[in-house]
Amino acid sequence: MSQAPQYERRHKVCVIGSGNWGSAIAKIVAENTASRPDMFEPQVEMWVFEEQVEVSKKHKLYDASSEIFQGKQPLTKVINTLHENVKYLPDIRFPDNLHANPSLEDTVKDCTMLVFNLPHQFINGICDKLQGKILPFARAISCIKGVDIVDGKVTLFSESIGKKLGIYCGALSGANIATEVAKELYSETTIAYDPPTLDSKGPSPVGSFTNLQDALKTSFKHKDTSGALANVHLVPMPSEYPPVDHAFCKALFHRPYFHVRLVNDVAGVSLGGALKNVVALAAGFVDGKGWGDNAKSAVMRVGLLEMVKFGMKYFGETVNPKTFTEESCGVADLITSCAGGRNHRCAKLAVERGVSIDEISQQVLNGQMLQGTSTAKEVNVILKNDGVEDEFPLMTIVNRILEGKATVDDIPTFIER
Amino acid sequence: MSQAPQYERRHKVCVIGSGNWGSAIAKIVAENTASRPDMFEPQVEMWVFEEQVEVSKKHKLYDASSEIFQGKQPLTKVINTLHENVKYLPDIRFPDNLHANPSLEDTVKDCTMLVFNLPHQFINGICDKLQGKILPFARAISCIKGVDIVDGKVTLFSESIGKKLGIYCGALSGANIATEVAKELYSETTIAYDPPTLDSKGPSPVGSFTNLQDALKTSFKHKDTSGALANVHLVPMPSEYPPVDHAFCKALFHRPYFHVRLVNDVAGVSLGGALKNVVALAAGFVDGKGWGDNAKSAVMRVGLLEMVKFGMKYFGETVNPKTFTEESCGVADLITSCAGGRNHRCAKLAVERGVSIDEISQQVLNGQMLQGTSTAKEVNVILKNDGVEDEFPLMTIVNRILEGKATVDDIPTFIER
Repeated sequence: MSQAPQYERRHKVCVIGSGNWGSAIAKIVAENTASRPDMFEPQVEMWVFEEQVEVSKKHKLYDASSEIFQGKQPLTKVINTLHENVKYLPDIRFPDNLHANPSLEDTVKDCTMLVFNLPHQFINGICDKLQGKILPFARAISCIKGVDIVDGKVTLFSESIGKKLGIYCGALSGANIATEVAKELYSETTIAYDPPTLDSKGPSPVGSFTNLQDALKTSFKHKDTSGALANVHLVPMPSEYPPVDHAFCKALFHRPYFHVRLVNDVAGVSLGGALKNVVALAAGFVDGKGWGDNAKSAVMRVGLLEMVKFGMKYFGETVNPKTFTEESCGVADLITSCAGGRNHRCAKLAVERGVSIDEISQQVLNGQMLQGTSTAKEVNVILKNDGVEDEFPLMTIVNRILEGKATVDDIPTFIER
Repeated sequence: MSQAPQYERRHKVCVIGSGNWGSAIAKIVAENTASRPDMFEPQVEMWVFEEQVEVSKKHKLYDASSEIFQGKQPLTKVINTLHENVKYLPDIRFPDNLHANPSLEDTVKDCTMLVFNLPHQFINGICDKLQGKILPFARAISCIKGVDIVDGKVTLFSESIGKKLGIYCGALSGANIATEVAKELYSETTIAYDPPTLDSKGPSPVGSFTNLQDALKTSFKHKDTSGALANVHLVPMPSEYPPVDHAFCKALFHRPYFHVRLVNDVAGVSLGGALKNVVALAAGFVDGKGWGDNAKSAVMRVGLLEMVKFGMKYFGETVNPKTFTEESCGVADLITSCAGGRNHRCAKLAVERGVSIDEISQQVLNGQMLQGTSTAKEVNVILKNDGVEDEFPLMTIVNRILEGKATVDDIPTFIER
């Protein structure tokens, strides 16, 4: 395949976030931009929330002459010297073209693709700071797991980002334990990317305009279901750049050890990453009881179908059941989470020790809230409001068990109803 | 719900087979016939291949006065005395209405429902002996796992039984480790039951004839894909009996701890139980390498989709993809098998110890052949004949690894093609 540039300009990509998963994704992105110079500018900026870290002299890339070993140093400086995020992704070598940057504004400058991968509670604040700083025709991919469910309303993080910044944002999610991905152990992921059709041109793909002058603000039919994007105006990608489409997403994220499949179902991809945590609690309860592998796979199967049902009920026709039953973000992520994710582990321990799951998460996670418990609670608010708890017996009984209103022994009978 | 009999006659049920899984299913069936006297004669005969066994005096139901403790005794006598299959399902109490019977002819006498649950290599011989001994309008359910693939031809066990006996036979399969089911630990299963439409009456359900005199032999449109039933004449169930339909199957097999879902897709239910063993080998290989939970769920997901694809390709429109992706016989059985089934375990050990899987099965299974290895080989004959190995990369590479022509490290690249 020829890699001679066919377009006048190349895409510039940045990663916003540098935790465990953020660093692992930044490594992948930088590997790909380096290998496709026809399509991408190789250099990838990764925004790092600056903090002071001390680098252990046991560090395997230790070079005594470096000043980074003298007391506390800024994390960005450490990363750019060692090519390693010693704090959040230790022992993994970054490519040289990945550059840690403490300045948000500098990180996103001239970028046509923003990859978001930071804790969800920071999204709004970061997007506020980015307003007016990004290219108006930029696109984004959110790697933030799950969805935001507050007071009975489901919001996709990709929608929040898209709305705040006035750009289109897709979603990446899959069976992706970050440290395994960082070690280049084989895994898969799912990317949902489905920018809306531009009204003024009819159903023309993003990127089909002839030059920057044509890149007028154009209102589009929103495809999201919460209405978050209804009033956003999308600026087409100038035709100087390679189009941002499924092939683009694959070029940016696919690696020999990280296989990407593209879908159009942003809601399904995002929901999978949230609802699987509730199912993982059920699987953990069952494992804690020692009911065996039949019972575990049964609650996983029932949970998978309730995930599909929830998606279809609340995201209507935009959701494809196959996103849950056939993609990495669905069934595979569920399997991985039920094999040894923290929700599963804590639920199992809670049953084995006969204490509440909150008590376990205090002990095991230093009081960090489990995602599954808050999701189970918020999902239940929705189901109860709509009077449809009966249609989602597994989600419902998980919440009742968490509330102390039912026991694990009630699960089979409750599901049977 | 009233249980007053609405029909003149009740169904008589027998179980043919009394191994580990046969005994577990017989227990379930007997529990249900006892609890639904409106529909079933309570007594269930279970055919036992007679052998002499010695009962340990440590047996928990030990009664020194009983002659069954004097030296070797017939297995049927032991079962009928202790209400336990001490040899194949020890420590599980059978209901009193389950009766072990060494005579095939006596077991099936007057039975309207035959439940087959014996090692598949005995099917033909047993069916030969049953010819002319069963009610012509009997129906059957096969609980025999998997399918028979020989020389590039896939045969469903339910079809072999149906053809041999001239009756309709459905299939039961699911995430059902027998000892867990026998202990009444919660699990699920899938039953496929879809008798063909009778030609002479048009699309009339089985059981709609008014009396035995109407129960003439009637040719029917076969629904099987191998053509095995094409020349079979189906005798309608006399209307004196409750109809044998999905509700009947549920009444016979569903328990509070054994949840039954009914489908029409006999081929899908049967294929799931065979093909999952090939995927379990792949999962075991990956686990043996220590590639982690992402990689394991990835090969399981890829395998699940190849199971669907295989079903659609070779069983055409009779197969429903959802049988694989949503039912116990599909995704759940796959999960259970990849969690700790023998195919997974042996494949994992083979990689860990750096020896062939045949060597491991010699050591671990006393030379018993693994189902996954023979299925992988037979599936490959089909794929190779049709020149479609490329469409089934996971099934193909598993076979190549077994043949020593590829290594586990090749899996990600091979799947990526």
